[in-house]
Amino acid sequence: MENIGYYNGKTGLIEEMTIPMGDRSVYFGDGVYDATYSVNHIIFAIEDHLDRFYNSCRLLEIPAPMEREELKKTLYDCVKQVDDPDQFVYWQCTRGTGIRNHIFPEGKSNLLIYCLPCPMKDLSQRYKLISMEDTRFYHCNVKTLNLIPSVLASQRAKEAGCQETVFHRGDLVTECAHSNVSIIKDGKFITHQLDNLVLPGITRKHLIEICKEKGIPVEERDYTMDDLRAADEIIVSSSGALCMPACELDGKPVGGKAPEIIKILQDAYLERLHKETAVK
Amino acid sequence: MENIGYYNGKTGLIEEMTIPMGDRSVYFGDGVYDATYSVNHIIFAIEDHLDRFYNSCRLLEIPAPMEREELKKTLYDCVKQVDDPDQFVYWQCTRGTGIRNHIFPEGKSNLLIYCLPCPMKDLSQRYKLISMEDTRFYHCNVKTLNLIPSVLASQRAKEAGCQETVFHRGDLVTECAHSNVSIIKDGKFITHQLDNLVLPGITRKHLIEICKEKGIPVEERDYTMDDLRAADEIIVSSSGALCMPACELDGKPVGGKAPEIIKILQDAYLERLHKETAVK
Repeated sequence: MENIGYYNGKTGLIEEMTIPMGDRSVYFGDGVYDATYSVNHIIFAIEDHLDRFYNSCRLLEIPAPMEREELKKTLYDCVKQVDDPDQFVYWQCTRGTGIRNHIFPEGKSNLLIYCLPCPMKDLSQRYKLISMEDTRFYHCNVKTLNLIPSVLASQRAKEAGCQETVFHRGDLVTECAHSNVSIIKDGKFITHQLDNLVLPGITRKHLIEICKEKGIPVEERDYTMDDLRAADEIIVSSSGALCMPACELDGKPVGGKAPEIIKILQDAYLERLHKETAVK
Repeated sequence: MENIGYYNGKTGLIEEMTIPMGDRSVYFGDGVYDATYSVNHIIFAIEDHLDRFYNSCRLLEIPAPMEREELKKTLYDCVKQVDDPDQFVYWQCTRGTGIRNHIFPEGKSNLLIYCLPCPMKDLSQRYKLISMEDTRFYHCNVKTLNLIPSVLASQRAKEAGCQETVFHRGDLVTECAHSNVSIIKDGKFITHQLDNLVLPGITRKHLIEICKEKGIPVEERDYTMDDLRAADEIIVSSSGALCMPACELDGKPVGGKAPEIIKILQDAYLERLHKETAVK
């Protein structure tokens, strides 16, 4: 198939799939999701993503749609049906179906999946960024479907000819609209600590592991917009953006002063990705 | 019909209606809504609700699904098809349909409507309340579909045997999970000012107008949790809760010291409602 949409056991082309009007995503955004790349029909970092997915369910008290091994099998059943081996694999779970009522419903959660062809990002480029006040809620550690502020911020970036928006709460940098953001300064990798203001990014986690392997000191702590502007490098990371350096912030040049560290991180990250997804 | 669901021109029973998997409500909660009562098949305060709905669309830059008079006619077409004259009338608009992408899509917005039988709240009762830190985003003036914190807070209230949750940011009261909250103190009506922390409630607006008619001074300003606990009356207001006094907050008795003002407000509010929805 060209792509696949899945909903509670039914499958079809994404463009042709429907879901009940009463699914709680429709009127409350009441659900969580996760997503990653498939390369060679192998889902990258699946265990990390399932860890986070089940944790998101737990944090919002949404019953998991199925057991972990069954979900993994269901994801693979979908991935294998799409012809292109390189895909974006997305799955979400919502708190059931019913007449709109804030109170948790009786009954089962809903599982939605889709897989569609997606080439990997070109890491020889650099992102242009804008910055905006972070007006999101205080549940940013959960990968929820309540994403309006990220939608608005992404649209502002696009209109400015940029690829991402850096959020800050007051003067403190948190993350991007749909990525984490970290900096390199004086040979150190600095990134916001894990709390309710940022998503525990899987790529962020891999980059921290790689830093430790390569002897690059890591600091997980608050840093400011001035720190961002003065950084040797700015790194935007996510399952989609991978490990993407930036060259511009709010129209002014940034980063570019430690390309050798960017290369170390990108090479090691791609090595992990290709090793795990190599055809055996 | 027993109830009606509407989606972009198609209608059916809510339980049987479906929407495309690619509607942006499903994965971003990317839409706005409004809702009110219908009494005798007449939609109460329709002009106020349409004002707010189009303003919500404008604030999120979502193209309105249709012109105002056409939307009003479409809502009435739905209301008239439901047998029960007393209904909850809900409509939402989402930022179109497509493959998941944060950037605004090309193409049309989606309009979803449903109407279902709903008796009006019994105003001789009083609500029990709990309180919680307000962890929502800073777009609470927009009636969006990003409602996870309100869902969680409503569930906590239910588990505590209560009917609503009062949110506070630090020590300052904002509003409830799905209502505004105001207090009566020394004969004055005090309610949070309109800003990005509270919804501009239609019932709140009517109550302020009624206060002015009846010579009750109104203050729109911040007030604290201590002010709430020491209030002569606490009033929870929304299109669903109407003008509901409270008797308990976090397990302790509150309010009940100015029932004569509650009666003035409730009588005047119901008079407006019944006058507008009387069968001619």
